[in-house]
Amino acid sequence: MVLPIDLLEVSINREVSLLLKDGRLLKGKLLGFDQYMNLVLDEAREEKEDSERRIGKVVVRGSNVVSISLM
Amino acid sequence: MVLPIDLLEVSINREVSLLLKDGRLLKGKLLGFDQYMNLVLDEAREEKEDSERRIGKVVVRGSNVVSISLM
Amino acid sequence: MVLPIDLLEVSINREVSLLLKDGRLLKGKLLGFDQYMNLVLDEAREEKEDSERRIGKVVVRGSNVVSISLM
Amino acid sequence: MVLPIDLLEVSINREVSLLLKDGRLLKGKLLGFDQYMNLVLDEAREEKEDSERRIGKVVVRGSNVVSISLM
Amino acid sequence: MVLPIDLLEVSINREVSLLLKDGRLLKGKLLGFDQYMNLVLDEAREEKEDSERRIGKVVVRGSNVVSISLM
Amino acid sequence: MVLPIDLLEVSINREVSLLLKDGRLLKGKLLGFDQYMNLVLDEAREEKEDSERRIGKVVVRGSNVVSISLM
Amino acid sequence: MVLPIDLLEVSINREVSLLLKDGRLLKGKLLGFDQYMNLVLDEAREEKEDSERRIGKVVVRGSNVVSISLM
Repeated sequence: MVLPIDLLEVSINREVSLLLKDGRLLKGKLLGFDQYMNLVLDEAREEKEDSERRIGKVVVRGSNVVSISLM
Repeated sequence: MVLPIDLLEVSINREVSLLLKDGRLLKGKLLGFDQYMNLVLDEAREEKEDSERRIGKVVVRGSNVVSISLM
Repeated sequence: MVLPIDLLEVSINREVSLLLKDGRLLKGKLLGFDQYMNLVLDEAREEKEDSERRIGKVVVRGSNVVSISLM
Repeated sequence: MVLPIDLLEVSINREVSLLLKDGRLLKGKLLGFDQYMNLVLDEAREEKEDSERRIGKVVVRGSNVVSISLM
Repeated sequence: MVLPIDLLEVSINREVSLLLKDGRLLKGKLLGFDQYMNLVLDEAREEKEDSERRIGKVVVRGSNVVSISLM
Repeated sequence: MVLPIDLLEVSINREVSLLLKDGRLLKGKLLGFDQYMNLVLDEAREEKEDSERRIGKVVVRGSNVVSISLM
Repeated sequence: MVLPIDLLEVSINREVSLLLKDGRLLKGKLLGFDQYMNLVLDEAREEKEDSERRIGKVVVRGSNVVSISLM
């Protein structure tokens, strides 16, 4: 079995895509996470219809995250 | 009695369909889960009206899941 | 006093009707449940205005359930 | 002081009216409850504008309940 | 310092006004409360624009309460 | 480091402004708080576009509070 | 691995940008935080389309925060 935490661990220092509860899509390099699935992204950017907003280093609270996918 | 965790265990490596709170429908092969019902899907895709979006490997947070059905 | 868990136990292997938070109505045979009121239904189907969608075996997360009634 | 649990206990086998978070109004005989205020009603019915829907025996999850009043 | 529980205790047997999350306003005599701020009101009534609905004895779940004010 | 609880403690008996989840703005003198950030305000009033509603002594549940600022 | 708490610690006394669940954007100097990610900002201001509102010292409850980014 692949535990959720296992997939997060192999994703460290790789590009991930976060879908948030409010529909926002964040991409960036996963630097770390804790037991609440709070996540740290580097070089994060929010992707919109036809543009992107650069955010840089960011902590995203796990309670707002729907899914985390490896890119 | 069939516990929820029993049905998840027999679903490992099989195709499942997740209904999310925001109405999204995700399908993919269940690779694993934890005690919060956070789930790992492989070859995940989001099914829409008349198309599908390929997502690949993904962690879905249990708090956003309404139901998990065996396909 | 009839505890909620008592009514669930006598409902095992019987038809139940679940009302979900998003207004959906699921019917099926109750196979089991856990302490969070996560439920397992067999031969589940979602009833809509004038049709029904067959779902089969499904785990429904308790946090999305409003009520469980015996049919 | 009258604790919430005290009022529920004297309400056993009496008619109560439940207001749910989604605005629904359920009436029925209170058969029991647990520490999460999950409730069991017998002869439950949902009251609407000018009709009522008979539900029978039902478990209502406490997290969806706004108030419980003695009728 | 006046703890929230201190103000509730001096409010026992006095008229209070509850603002609920769904915007409803309930008034009544506070009979008691528990550690989750579930409350018991006597002679409760819901105040609306230009009328009031009499509810009688009621348990209000704390998770639906925004504020409790002394009248 | 200034802990959230430190700022609340120095705010006792001073005017604070509470932003609630439903957008309401409450002002008043902070009398106390507990570990859930339930708060007690004295001489509370709700500020609206061009008027204010006097509320008096009030317990505000922490789960409805977005932010607490010193005035 | 960079834990979320690590990034918050290096952000102390630096400018951060908070995205709240209701879409509000708060900026200010991070003075501190606790284990629930309740945050203390100094010289906080809310940024809107084409203006900003000065808030001063503020406690922001972690449960309302979507993300915290270093500026």
